[in-house]
Amino acid sequence: MNAHIITIGDEILIGQTLNTNAAFIGEKLSLKQIKISGSSVIPDDEGLIIAEFKRVYSTNDIVLVTGGLGPTHDDVTRKSIVDFFETELIVNNEVLSDIKNFFEARGRELTETNADQALVPKIAHTIRNSRGTAPGYWIEKKDKIFAAMPGVPYEMKAMMEDFVLPRLDEKFHDKKNAIVVKNLLTTGIPESMLFDRLGNIDELLKGAKLAFLPSQFGVKMRITVEDKSEDSALSRLEEIEQTIRTKVGKFIYGKEEDKLEDIAAKLLIDRGLKLSVAESCTGGLISHRLTNFSGSSKFLERGIVAYSNAAKVELLHVDEDTIMKYGAVSLEVARQMAEGIKSISGSDIGLSVTGIMGPTGATPAKPIGLVYIGICDEKICTAKEFRFGDDRLLNKDRTSQAALEMLRKYLLGIAYDD
Amino acid sequence: MNAHIITIGDEILIGQTLNTNAAFIGEKLSLKQIKISGSSVIPDDEGLIIAEFKRVYSTNDIVLVTGGLGPTHDDVTRKSIVDFFETELIVNNEVLSDIKNFFEARGRELTETNADQALVPKIAHTIRNSRGTAPGYWIEKKDKIFAAMPGVPYEMKAMMEDFVLPRLDEKFHDKKNAIVVKNLLTTGIPESMLFDRLGNIDELLKGAKLAFLPSQFGVKMRITVEDKSEDSALSRLEEIEQTIRTKVGKFIYGKEEDKLEDIAAKLLIDRGLKLSVAESCTGGLISHRLTNFSGSSKFLERGIVAYSNAAKVELLHVDEDTIMKYGAVSLEVARQMAEGIKSISGSDIGLSVTGIMGPTGATPAKPIGLVYIGICDEKICTAKEFRFGDDRLLNKDRTSQAALEMLRKYLLGIAYDD
Repeated sequence: MNAHIITIGDEILIGQTLNTNAAFIGEKLSLKQIKISGSSVIPDDEGLIIAEFKRVYSTNDIVLVTGGLGPTHDDVTRKSIVDFFETELIVNNEVLSDIKNFFEARGRELTETNADQALVPKIAHTIRNSRGTAPGYWIEKKDKIFAAMPGVPYEMKAMMEDFVLPRLDEKFHDKKNAIVVKNLLTTGIPESMLFDRLGNIDELLKGAKLAFLPSQFGVKMRITVEDKSEDSALSRLEEIEQTIRTKVGKFIYGKEEDKLEDIAAKLLIDRGLKLSVAESCTGGLISHRLTNFSGSSKFLERGIVAYSNAAKVELLHVDEDTIMKYGAVSLEVARQMAEGIKSISGSDIGLSVTGIMGPTGATPAKPIGLVYIGICDEKICTAKEFRFGDDRLLNKDRTSQAALEMLRKYLLGIAYDD
Repeated sequence: MNAHIITIGDEILIGQTLNTNAAFIGEKLSLKQIKISGSSVIPDDEGLIIAEFKRVYSTNDIVLVTGGLGPTHDDVTRKSIVDFFETELIVNNEVLSDIKNFFEARGRELTETNADQALVPKIAHTIRNSRGTAPGYWIEKKDKIFAAMPGVPYEMKAMMEDFVLPRLDEKFHDKKNAIVVKNLLTTGIPESMLFDRLGNIDELLKGAKLAFLPSQFGVKMRITVEDKSEDSALSRLEEIEQTIRTKVGKFIYGKEEDKLEDIAAKLLIDRGLKLSVAESCTGGLISHRLTNFSGSSKFLERGIVAYSNAAKVELLHVDEDTIMKYGAVSLEVARQMAEGIKSISGSDIGLSVTGIMGPTGATPAKPIGLVYIGICDEKICTAKEFRFGDDRLLNKDRTSQAALEMLRKYLLGIAYDD
C-alpha cells in the first residue's frame, strides 16, 4: 500500500509558504501505517501537474493532492484532473447550495466566480467543504484512490479528518504490526533535566522509542511502541507511561493535542471557581488563550491588561509607593496585581503577570526575560520569579504558559517549586 | 534553466520535521531567477533515491539534494550518488583533516564512523562543511549541475551561501531573465470579490502572474513579473501594482511579511495617539497582537477583557438597560464599550469588540459569527456589524483582524464601508 502526496503551488516551491500541508498529511498517513513513497511540489502549471499525476498514479495506490482548487485563474488543479481522467465538468447542486449558504450566512452576494466552483469533474465524488467554498474530489478507480483538496490548511485538515481518513480506514484494513503512539506534554522543565530524571532510558523503554520535542510551550515526549497486536502494544505503552509518570508526573499537564488553557479551564469549571486575570507584559495573551476554550464565560469573569502604571494603580489598586520602591516588574507588584484583580472582580482566584519581554526595557538589575507571576485566593497570595530568554514573542508564549501551569498546579495542589 | 530540489529523509515524509530546507533553497533559487520545475521528498531508500536522481537529472539543468549524508546506517545518499554516477569512493585528505580538526576543537576522539565521511565520490568536487563533519558534493557534467548537501539546516545554509549560490552565479551568468515578486496584503474583502473588482485580469497583467492566497487574516496577492532586465521587470511590476491599488487600494494594508498590528501601531505612534481596547469575544487577542509590537507601551494605555456583563457595566460603564434591551452583542453595546474604555483610560481612541464566536451562544436572531466592532474618539463614536464563520478560533482571528483594520482605516481616514 503506497501513497504519494502532491502539493500544488508556486508559493510553496519558491519558499514563500512552508509546506505544512504535506507534513500534516504525511503524519496522518503514517499513523494509519500507510507507507509514503514520496511527496512532491509542482508549480501552478497544467502541463507539469498532469505529467505528475500520470507518473505517481501509475506507481501508487493512493494519491492525495492539495492546492490549486480556488476560484481564480491561477488555480488549475480542477482542469488538470478533468484532462487526466478524461472526464468533464458538471454542476453539482449540493456544492452550489453549500456555496450559496456560505455567502448568505456572511450576508454577501454570490459572484459568478464562486458559483463556478460548483462545477465538478463528473467522475468525482465531491468532498464537502465545511470551512470554505471549494469542494474536494474523491476518485476511486480500479482499486486506486485519487483525492484532491484545497490548499488552505484549515479547509484541507477538516476534509482529511472528516472524509479522507475515515474512507481510507474503510477501504484498507491493515494486516501489519500494530504501532501505537502517545504524546505526553510537559512544561516548566528543560529537556536535559527531564532526560536525567527518567534515569536508565534503555531499561525503561525496552525497544520502544521515546522522542523529546521541545518548544517554547514545553517538552513533548512522544512514545512509540510497535508490537504484534494492538493490545500487546497498548499494554507495553501503558507500562512505559506509568514509569514515566512516576518519575516526572508533576510536569505532565496533558497528552496529544491538549492545550494547557483547556486543562486549566476544565479544572476551574469542575471546581466551580471564577478566575480573573491581570496582565502586563503578556498584553492579553493569557485571557486570549483561556477564551479559546469554548465555555470560558463559565469561569472567566474579566481580564485587565494593565500596560501602564496608571492602569495598575487605578484599575488594580496596586500601591504607587510599591511601584516606586520595587519597580513595576517585581514580586511585590505581581502579588498586588493578583490580589487587586481578585478583589475588584469578586472572583475566587486572581492571576497576574509582570515582566520584561524585550528587546528594550532591561536594566542592569532586571534583565530581559525576567518575569513575576502572582496567584491569590481568599487565603493565600503568592508570587514566583521566572527567567526566560531574549525573544519578545517567545517570551510572551513562555510567560503565558508558566502562568497557566502555575494555575494548574494551584488547582491540583501541586507545589510550585520542583 | 530548470532546477529541481530533492529532500531525502523519512522524518520529512511522515511530517515529523517541516521541510524548511526546500523552502530555503527554493527562495534562494527564485531570487537568482532560476526557475524551479519541482521539488520532491524521497524516503531513506537507495532504490527510490536512485530512481528519483534518474528522473529529475534527465529533465533539469540543476539538481540540488539535501539530506542522508550523515554518518549513520540510514544515510544512503552518498551510496546512491556513487551508483547513479557509476563512480567510486576515494579518501579526500582535505575533508579528513577538516573532520579531525572539528573533533579536536571539541576535545573529542575521532571515531571510525566519522572518519568514514572523508570517503567521497571520485567524480565530485567536495563542498567543505564549516559547521559539521559531512562534506557536500558538487558534480558538473555535460553542462548539468548536481549538488548534494547535508540535511542539517544550518550546515546546508552555509554551503548554499558560501559555495553553491556563488558557483551557480558564475556558471549561469547573463543567460536568464529577471524575475521580481511582490506581495500585497488585503483584508476585509473575499478572494472572489477582489478578483471581480480587478476587472479584466489578462489586460491588467500582460503576461505577469497574479496569485491569490487566502487565510483567515485576508487575501495575499502575489505579483510575479519576468522580463529581460531587472529594471524593466521592476517598472512593469510598479505599473501593475499601481493599477491594482487604483482598484482595490483601500483593502491593501501592507506588503510582504507586514503584520496589521504593526501597521496600526506605527500609525498610532506617528500621530502620537493613545489607544485603549475593550474586548469581549476576542478575550484579549487584540491587545495581545498590539503588544507583540516592540514599543507598544508608547500607545497602548490599557486593555479590558469585559467577558461578563458585570465587567462591562462596572469597568466600561455600559448602561445595564442597553444590555437588557439590545443584548450584549449589539451595535449599541459595542459603541458604549468603545466610549467607556476611551473615557475611563483618558486615551484618544477607544476600540471595542463584542460578538458570538461559537460553537455555543447563538440565538435565532444572533447567529454564530455575528460581531460588532466599535471605535470612538473625542468627536465620533461608531460601530459596524460583521458576519464571520462558525469556527471559534478562526472567528477570534477574523474579529481581531477586522478590528485592527477598522483602526487602520480610522487612522488613515478611509471609509469603513466598501
